[in-house]
This record gives sequence, C-alpha cells and structure tokens, in this order.
Amino acid sequence: MDVREVADAADPRLADYTRLRDVELRKSLETERGLFIAEGEKVIRRALAAGYPARSVLLTRKWLPALADVLGGVTVYLVGDEVMREVAGFQVHRGALASMERLPLPPVGKLLAGASSVVVLEDIVDHSNIGAIMRCAAALGVGGVVLSPRCADPLYRRAVKVSMGTVFSVPYARMDDWHGGLAELRAAGFRLLALTPAHHAAPIEEALERARDGKVALMLGSEGDGLSSRWLSQADEPVRIPMSGEVDSLNVAAAASIACYLLTRRA
Amino acid sequence: MDVREVADAADPRLADYTRLRDVELRKSLETERGLFIAEGEKVIRRALAAGYPARSVLLTRKWLPALADVLGGVTVYLVGDEVMREVAGFQVHRGALASMERLPLPPVGKLLAGASSVVVLEDIVDHSNIGAIMRCAAALGVGGVVLSPRCADPLYRRAVKVSMGTVFSVPYARMDDWHGGLAELRAAGFRLLALTPAHHAAPIEEALERARDGKVALMLGSEGDGLSSRWLSQADEPVRIPMSGEVDSLNVAAAASIACYLLTRRA
Ligand SMILES: C[S@@+](CC[C@H](N)C(=O)[O-])C[C@H]1O[C@@H](n2cnc3c(N)ncnc32)[C@H](O)[C@@H]1O
Ligand SMILES: C[S@@+](CC[C@H](N)C(=O)[O-])C[C@H]1O[C@@H](n2cnc3c(N)ncnc32)[C@H](O)[C@@H]1O
Repeated sequence: MDVREVADAADPRLADYTRLRDVELRKSLETERGLFIAEGEKVIRRALAAGYPARSVLLTRKWLPALADVLGGVTVYLVGDEVMREVAGFQVHRGALASMERLPLPPVGKLLAGASSVVVLEDIVDHSNIGAIMRCAAALGVGGVVLSPRCADPLYRRAVKVSMGTVFSVPYARMDDWHGGLAELRAAGFRLLALTPAHHAAPIEEALERARDGKVALMLGSEGDGLSSRWLSQADEPVRIPMSGEVDSLNVAAAASIACYLLTRRA
Repeated sequence: MDVREVADAADPRLADYTRLRDVELRKSLETERGLFIAEGEKVIRRALAAGYPARSVLLTRKWLPALADVLGGVTVYLVGDEVMREVAGFQVHRGALASMERLPLPPVGKLLAGASSVVVLEDIVDHSNIGAIMRCAAALGVGGVVLSPRCADPLYRRAVKVSMGTVFSVPYARMDDWHGGLAELRAAGFRLLALTPAHHAAPIEEALERARDGKVALMLGSEGDGLSSRWLSQADEPVRIPMSGEVDSLNVAAAASIACYLLTRRA
C-alpha cells in the first residue's frame, strides 16, 4: 500500500474521480481510460476479490483502516471530506472510491457455451434497472446476461452500487449487432421467450413448463416501449406474467425477478 | 380551469412546489400543509382520477394542452422553464407538477377487513423501494399494504413517480404502534410469513402451500438489517426465497415481486 495525502481537488492524480454525477462526462472518460468506479467498502472489496486490478483508491481518512487489509500494492490517495466532495461533485456518503481497470468482456458465443439459462436485455438504459437485474440474476443463479448494443453499462457507478457489487459475479456479454443478435442465441440451442405484458402472450409458467428440459433465454424490453417488434417477432414465443387490475405493466426489474425465479427453480 | 401566468419564482402562490429535492424541507412542508406532489402528465392524471383534489397545478407552457381536459375547476400556474427550475430546484423534465391534497388513510383494521392478502413493510425508508413495491402490489393484485410507523411516505414525489402513480390504487395504512402492530394482523386471521434470506427459513412456496386456504401477510424488512428480531419472533413462520451462489440477499423490491407473484397466483 502506497498512501499519499492529496490536498488539492485539482491534483491531476485524482482525475479518474472527476464529477461522478456528470453522466455524459463519465461515459466518455471511463471508456477512454478503460476504468470504472467502485463506491463504498463492500463494493470495493468485491471488485478486488473478483480480480479487477485497482488503478488507485481515493479515501477520506477514516476509511483507511476499514480497507487496509485488501490494499496491498495499491496506490491510495487520502483526502479530507471537502476535497472528496469537490472532486466527486457531491457528498460521497461512504467516503471510499476505487478506480478499477475494466477487463475484456467475453464474446457472446463464449458466454452462451457455458450457460443453460440467460437473460437478454434490449436497450435498457436506466442504470438502476441494470444494477437491479444483475443483482437478481446473481442471487438466483442465472447463467449469464446478454446485452443489446444500446443497453447501459453494468459497470457504471450507479449500476454497480445498486447491484451491491454482484455485477462482478454474473457473466455478461454485449452483442455487436442488434439486428441479427438473436440468431446466435437460437443457434446455440436456446429457446427465446419474449416477456411482454400483452394479453395474447402465454402465461410464463406454462411456457417454462414446455421448455422444461432445454436451454432458455428470457428477453426483457425497455421501460418505455418494451421489446421492439423485430425482437418480438424473432422470439420463439411471447410470454407474460399474469397481472390483475388496471396496471399496464410491471417495472422491468420486477418482471426480471419473477421470471428469473421461475426459470431457475426448475432445476 | 383558472390559468395564471407567474413570472417570479419567489411568488408565494408557488410555495407548494419549493425545492423538491430537499427531502427534509419537503417532509415538513408536505405534512404541515397536507399535500403531496404529482409529477408528469400520466401521474397527475392518475392522481385526479383516483379522487385526490388538486390544490393547484404548475406547468410550463407546452404542457397545458396535454392536460387541459382534466383541469376543469383547477388553478393552473403557467411559468417559463427557468422559473420552473428555480422553484423546483432542478430541471423538471416533464414540466408538469401538481400539488394534491392528501386524503385520510384508513385505519389498519379497516384495510385488513377488506383484504385476503397483504404486504407488511418494516422500516423501509428508501422512497424508490416503497414506490417499486407499491407498483408491484398493484399490478399483481395484492389486497393492501401495511406500513410500520417508520416506513417512508408512499406519497413522497419520488415514491409516486417510481410507482408510476399505481400508489393511488393500492389500499394502504400505517400502524400506530410498531411494538404491538402485528397482533392486529393475527387477530384479523392473517398468517404472518416473515421473509428472510436466512437458511433455516422454509422455502416460500412450501409455506404458501400450507397457508393455502387462509389469509396471508408477507412481512418484508429493511435494506440494511432486514426484519427486526421482535417481528421475526412474532411471525408464524420465517420463509425464504431460495437463492444460489454467494449473494447475501435480494433487494427488498425484488423479494417483494417474487413473493407477491407466488402469493397472488394461488387464487
Ligand atoms: C415497463 S415494461 C414495458 C411496457 C411496454 N409498454 C410494453 O408493452 O412492453 C418493461 C419490460 O418489462 C417486462 N414486463 C413488464 N410487465 C410484464 C408482464 N406482466 N409480463 C411479462 N413481462 C413484463 C417486459 O419485458 C417489458 O418489455
Ligand atoms: C436486502 S434484504 C435484508 C438483508 C438482511 N441482511 C437480512 O438478513 O435480512 C431486505 C429484505 O428483503 C427480503 N429478502 C431479501 N432476500 C430474500 C430472500 N432470499 N428470501 C426472502 N426474503 C428476502 C427480506 O424481507 C429482507 O428483510
């Protein structure tokens, strides 16, 4: 552990941590530098345990003892509360941030080869929803998550936080090609179930019963529009979680929770 | 509809809408005045349709036509984008806010008398989680939601927004007394199932099977600590949603989704 006190928020060594709430800035900065931010002691521990190399860690003084045991070999910048707030652009409640190196994602084909159940997300742009779905896939033991090209980044700070760091333990991959992306899933032997609140869709438990002995991919759509008509038409079957009352739909993370539970308890 | 242009963010007629992101200020202001804020066209429509009287509505100019059909008799303040931002304290994306009058909540006993399934929440303080749980209870047809005294307010702006306005259609009530609150549920004939990730708890589907023909209350605990030991010991049975892997627990809204689905599909 190499601990350095930093007194100035403009110090270039802190540049990885700049303006954490500025989504556009962060997206380009993190892509360019190949990093992501882990926030809070628990999440930082999980990122390190999952094998992501730390570029550096930024702590307010009182957090050093809590993390010291896992920071061997890591450069630690120690700052006061005020500098922390100035750099990050908000009051970081758990005054511990780590800048971690991204690792290459597996190709979709490789992910599919090792899984018998996957969740496929189309254009989910909300980081909280991505984080919630990753947590639930991890907790229930889904084999992996496949993202459409336009899905939000599961390693974005907010997604990582909502996932409680479970995003490090679910294998996931990103399609290159939205248009033809589902063909690869079908070729790998997955039955494609398209989740939709539409009335004509089959109740999900019946559809899972029919797919009993095979590999299953659960497709979920975006918060506003749901699955695109292209993806709906390419699926093997539209399926619904029966609802009652006048509510239009479940939140996508709630739908994912129920569907993943029903899928994984088959085993 | 009584439309008035307002040019000054400090105009006292806009005081209901002050600093919408200042949680502490809003809590006391809304309690004192007996109001809550509905945000966005869809949610405002649902609040009006559910019978909440509007104190006033605050719109940027372009939103007037979209809502005009439901604003008969309502005082509408029209402002520019800049005044909207100044009053609310942030950029209101869907430039439509309504200040609605709260209605008295039913006593817990009355809510229980009309329900055969309820969700009971202990000390859930996160507004997004409350909103997500209300949406899911509404969509799946749970009979009602009972809140412990310290739970967050389901009519807080963020909770209403996350619930997509479904919070107006789920009956809910708040206990006066945390310590003895569960006794009233038991007296009303509900079987109390305490949701916990603990290994010794029974798998939820088995417990629901045992409670097949009776009334069921699903108890859910807070994000950090889960259910208190007092509530756990007063329940009829601890139940768990089986998980796999090394994840400690599901998010409380994910657990609620799965549990509500399994509960309501029994019917
Ligand atoms: C908020 S919904 C989208 C609503 C959109 N209007 C539609 O009709 O699909 C987001 C996603 O959650 C899933 N979803 C929501 N409610 C569902 C239900 N009752 N059954 C199955 N899937 C559901 C679907 O995958 C959907 O694309
Ligand atoms: C994040 S969890 C709380 C975790 C807390 N450490 C505990 O052990 O209860 C919040 C709530 O979600 C529910 N919950 C989470 N995972 C669950 C599971 N696998 N089975 C049943 N309930 C669960 C419980 O009601 C819990 O109180």
